[in-house]
Amino acid sequence: MADTQLPEPALTEIRLTAVLHALADPIRLRIAAELAQDQGELACQAFDLPVTKSTSTHHFKVLREAGVIRQCRRGTHRMSHLRTADLETLFPGLLAGILGAHLAEDGRKD
Amino acid sequence: MADTQLPEPALTEIRLTAVLHALADPIRLRIAAELAQDQGELACQAFDLPVTKSTSTHHFKVLREAGVIRQCRRGTHRMSHLRTADLETLFPGLLAGILGAHLAEDGRKD
Repeated sequence: MADTQLPEPALTEIRLTAVLHALADPIRLRIAAELAQDQGELACQAFDLPVTKSTSTHHFKVLREAGVIRQCRRGTHRMSHLRTADLETLFPGLLAGILGAHLAEDGRKD
Repeated sequence: MADTQLPEPALTEIRLTAVLHALADPIRLRIAAELAQDQGELACQAFDLPVTKSTSTHHFKVLREAGVIRQCRRGTHRMSHLRTADLETLFPGLLAGILGAHLAEDGRKD
């Protein structure tokens, strides 16, 4: 069965404030950081998040609708990956800067 | 009369998600961009914002409480400036990256 891509903004529809809003949440920032670390695609189930399934689904939707991630259905799985190239085209260095800041902050907590 | 500094988070209290949330709004992003361009301090009245005075005051407060700007009262004025050095210490390159992305987006609108 072919993948079904979930609705997302086109490149020209992605707005900086929506991207910042999407990443201004600890859970969503963590999802983006894990996807960046994996450099590939991950099923929602692969994330060990401290929230309910419906809250988790909501967070993935906010990231997708902001243009931060792309999601597709594959069988019973919903796969996600970062739209790294699209974001880099629009806002060079932004995603790396935010994820770098997240790592720096996480490092200070240890 | 001496300046009175308004309450703000200490350096170690500044959180990345709060900074992103503060900048995830077109008006607040514009305030930060204007302060960055000016490289100094500006009175709230110096901004020609398309919102009421109380909404504007709220936006400045969100930026201050997130640690993005510092504000002080000077006579009847409330002066603001970016906490550029503090943010650079915590999250190197982040503020410049976000403001650069804002300029890039603004440029595409023209």
